[in-house]
Amino acid sequence: MVYNKAVKLLSILGSTGSIGTQTLEVIQKYPNKFKVVGLTANSNIALLKKQIVQFKPKAVAMMDEKSANQLQKIVKIKVYSGLEGVIKVACLKETETVINSVVGSIGVEPTMAAIKAKKNIALANKETLVTAGDIVMKEVKKNKVVLMPIDSEHSAIFQCLNGENIKKVRRIIITASGGPFRNHTKRQMEKVQLKDALKHPTWSMGAKITIDSATFMNKGFEVIEAHHLYDMPYEKIDVVVHPQSIIHSLVEFEDRSVMAQLGNPNMKIPIQYALSCPDRLPTTIKILDLADITNLTFFKPNLELFPCLKYAIIAGKIGGTLPAVVNAANEIAVSYFLQDKIKFLDIAKTINKMMKSHKTIKNPTLKQVLKVDKEVKEETEKFIKSLNAN
Amino acid sequence: MVYNKAVKLLSILGSTGSIGTQTLEVIQKYPNKFKVVGLTANSNIALLKKQIVQFKPKAVAMMDEKSANQLQKIVKIKVYSGLEGVIKVACLKETETVINSVVGSIGVEPTMAAIKAKKNIALANKETLVTAGDIVMKEVKKNKVVLMPIDSEHSAIFQCLNGENIKKVRRIIITASGGPFRNHTKRQMEKVQLKDALKHPTWSMGAKITIDSATFMNKGFEVIEAHHLYDMPYEKIDVVVHPQSIIHSLVEFEDRSVMAQLGNPNMKIPIQYALSCPDRLPTTIKILDLADITNLTFFKPNLELFPCLKYAIIAGKIGGTLPAVVNAANEIAVSYFLQDKIKFLDIAKTINKMMKSHKTIKNPTLKQVLKVDKEVKEETEKFIKSLNAN
Repeated sequence: MVYNKAVKLLSILGSTGSIGTQTLEVIQKYPNKFKVVGLTANSNIALLKKQIVQFKPKAVAMMDEKSANQLQKIVKIKVYSGLEGVIKVACLKETETVINSVVGSIGVEPTMAAIKAKKNIALANKETLVTAGDIVMKEVKKNKVVLMPIDSEHSAIFQCLNGENIKKVRRIIITASGGPFRNHTKRQMEKVQLKDALKHPTWSMGAKITIDSATFMNKGFEVIEAHHLYDMPYEKIDVVVHPQSIIHSLVEFEDRSVMAQLGNPNMKIPIQYALSCPDRLPTTIKILDLADITNLTFFKPNLELFPCLKYAIIAGKIGGTLPAVVNAANEIAVSYFLQDKIKFLDIAKTINKMMKSHKTIKNPTLKQVLKVDKEVKEETEKFIKSLNAN
Repeated sequence: MVYNKAVKLLSILGSTGSIGTQTLEVIQKYPNKFKVVGLTANSNIALLKKQIVQFKPKAVAMMDEKSANQLQKIVKIKVYSGLEGVIKVACLKETETVINSVVGSIGVEPTMAAIKAKKNIALANKETLVTAGDIVMKEVKKNKVVLMPIDSEHSAIFQCLNGENIKKVRRIIITASGGPFRNHTKRQMEKVQLKDALKHPTWSMGAKITIDSATFMNKGFEVIEAHHLYDMPYEKIDVVVHPQSIIHSLVEFEDRSVMAQLGNPNMKIPIQYALSCPDRLPTTIKILDLADITNLTFFKPNLELFPCLKYAIIAGKIGGTLPAVVNAANEIAVSYFLQDKIKFLDIAKTINKMMKSHKTIKNPTLKQVLKVDKEVKEETEKFIKSLNAN
């Protein structure tokens, strides 16, 4: 196939999810700028088939082997399967940029493989940097590829650093919506229901990240990601709660001047910016009207009420395999909470337990990180079962 | 004299004023970065003498001839006098950058002379761009010099445009503190006293600019300046009232992403940035703590209550000599108000009268602009006397 050189060739991992489908909407709007060559999904055959018809990729993959076999029977292009298949699609010869919007630690290996294959990365998968930040950033530098964050906070920081000298940064300030329980008392927290946790006040996102936002774990992960993305010591990263989600994050410089990126909460901005940067392309997102919003508020996060934020930062500071432990324990605990099998406060309790029983490995290899991820997930399941047995 | 090439050589016009003294504080802190070669003042002999002793300029000037003669008797360096003298100091051979912090239309000619002498400009004098923006920006381009704004709003916009393509700007949003009367009723406005108008809620500035802030004329001038500085049509420039003066201005891009510059209200940031840009140097200004501020508010400016903003924008859109008329009428009206000789609302009334009786000259020369400035000032004095006679 011959492609126009002005067009950026993309593989999207997790194309049927929330970020994946929004990425495809951006691509659809700018066919002269972006072209899909690969797509991957977990098991949503119907939607992936639709995407194949519309975007005509060269190859696709499905994590679920059975789904992959079913899909191969009804489409003409190659359908790969499993993690190996996802990696194949990430590393397609034509692919220039890989958008990794897979949810969970399963997204780590495809990112690493793509970096080694000299692909630029647009990264929505939090686990890549949370669990293996040191390893991944080392490969990014070694292979001289660009790693662009796809989330509103890190995209904001990236935009604030535009044209600036990163050595002059005094502090990165990540804003947090605070989730649905930011004004709860400890007693109210004990009675939180799944349906309440799924109601995010400002952002429409996938289920896992919505729960992570309600526990503040999401914000803890973002602190770890900022540490790796901008090579910033943890002491220089702050979190401030900003319920309106209008200021997406800020950067304070040595002269005490602070740059911020603002906008109505819409993932299209960071998705499109990750693809078009340093250029900006028109969108039809609602225009920000501060006089209409009238009020932006800010307060410090409550670490007593939301210990997950504290756990993530502690894990980040200690480093090694500990962030992978927090991530693995959280991933399992949230999946049980999403099945309504544990209470909201059990998420933090479970993570704390797993952190305490882990012996951190310093400077781990990716293999060691993935082993810890697997083992902690198993231990977490056991712990949750014992919790429920009591 | 032999100067270190890493040091920026500066002439400061209006060195005894609010911006001038703060500029000298910045220079004092970074003697390895900045060096004063010229200073000018109006008539404050005592302070200028002190500055000469401390900063050892090559030459100085005083607008007031008598003051100049007096100073020459007590200092060894050359003391020039009058507007011609100020221009001489602006155009000293060694001078690389001219900081123009003169107040009033008297600042226009030195800026123009300095640009023609290929000096970079750090501009705090609003009248330069308000009265002669087209002419000045043409010379800036022709002489390939840099014109950096010294005021919090335009410095903010400049910082928001860092690393960005100005063609992708959708809108410039200038914030206004709203001054001391932003919540007044029409009836309360009628009873405003000089002492009330001099109490600015967030910024500590000179008397003239404090009154201009209370009438919103300052904001009108900033719209005209933004039009010239960023070559932006008036339709793309908005004003939003933001009483806390924390967000100093914003830039909206085509992708609906909005960049903003924030900080505690302190002129040191824009002054220093104008001198150090694109570098940033540490300051000891109070750190911005949003969780401590808790609340940022915004509302639309009330053009009925503050017609000066409307007058300035109308004058900017019509262009030619009309902005110079608004500026001249305002300069005289404010000076009378500062002497407690007219009422607060008479300022807007006077400007409106002068605008209505002016026949705009399109594409004027600088000479024509300065002639209009002089004539309108005389007419304004006459009108004010007739006002007071009634």
